[in-house]
Amino acid sequence: MTNDEKAIRTVIEDWARAVESAEREGILANHADDLLMFDFPDVVRGLKAYDRTWDFFFDKPKGPIRYTPRELIVTASEQVAFATCLVHCDGTSAGALDFRLTTGLRKEADAWTIVHEHHSVPTVEERFIGPGSK
Amino acid sequence: MTNDEKAIRTVIEDWARAVESAEREGILANHADDLLMFDFPDVVRGLKAYDRTWDFFFDKPKGPIRYTPRELIVTASEQVAFATCLVHCDGTSAGALDFRLTTGLRKEADAWTIVHEHHSVPTVEERFIGPGSK
Repeated sequence: MTNDEKAIRTVIEDWARAVESAEREGILANHADDLLMFDFPDVVRGLKAYDRTWDFFFDKPKGPIRYTPRELIVTASEQVAFATCLVHCDGTSAGALDFRLTTGLRKEADAWTIVHEHHSVPTVEERFIGPGSK
Repeated sequence: MTNDEKAIRTVIEDWARAVESAEREGILANHADDLLMFDFPDVVRGLKAYDRTWDFFFDKPKGPIRYTPRELIVTASEQVAFATCLVHCDGTSAGALDFRLTTGLRKEADAWTIVHEHHSVPTVEERFIGPGSK
């Protein structure tokens, strides 16, 4: 694993831990001002709008927040990288769920910065589910 | 725009045109054998499984296939890149839809190769839709 890959893993794991602790500053750390997020329901543009999405996330929790990335794969050069993982989440008003996360990063002033997040839950709409689907 | 950014735009635009023409070889071109795809309903691993997802896509079309990327943004170094866009799709059994696409690429033998695709439709599940959502 290269130093860049290690640094990116740390950025993503620290972010997930900040979510579990509801530490908004830690959640926003290492994120670009012009971040583009494909959130479950919406396209979210910019860090302020990204920040607001966490208000709903932390509203009416059902228990301790769990936010655990697994199968984290990082593909990195020295300047640009992306990462994929599956996240197990529990404790929010939405209940237990597993979602897919892709993260896009750029190195800025020698620090890896998240410029894109794509969060999605597997669709429940039948029109998208083929005979080969689970 | 760098030559790498131009080359990546071409890879994605050619792929979308191959989808519109139902040219399976063109759809699979520039894709890695160990591709990881987060598809609408499933996690899809490897090029053979990726190929099979197009069987369902092209089954029972309702009209000419439209598959149009817009707002394509490419973030590229010389070796690793990712791209985001919104895709308008029509003509399949699922009817008209707009989805979000993130693509992860790696340069292999001097050619940009797609190693990751994340396709998602905005969720319709109420538990994920906050007061700030559309």
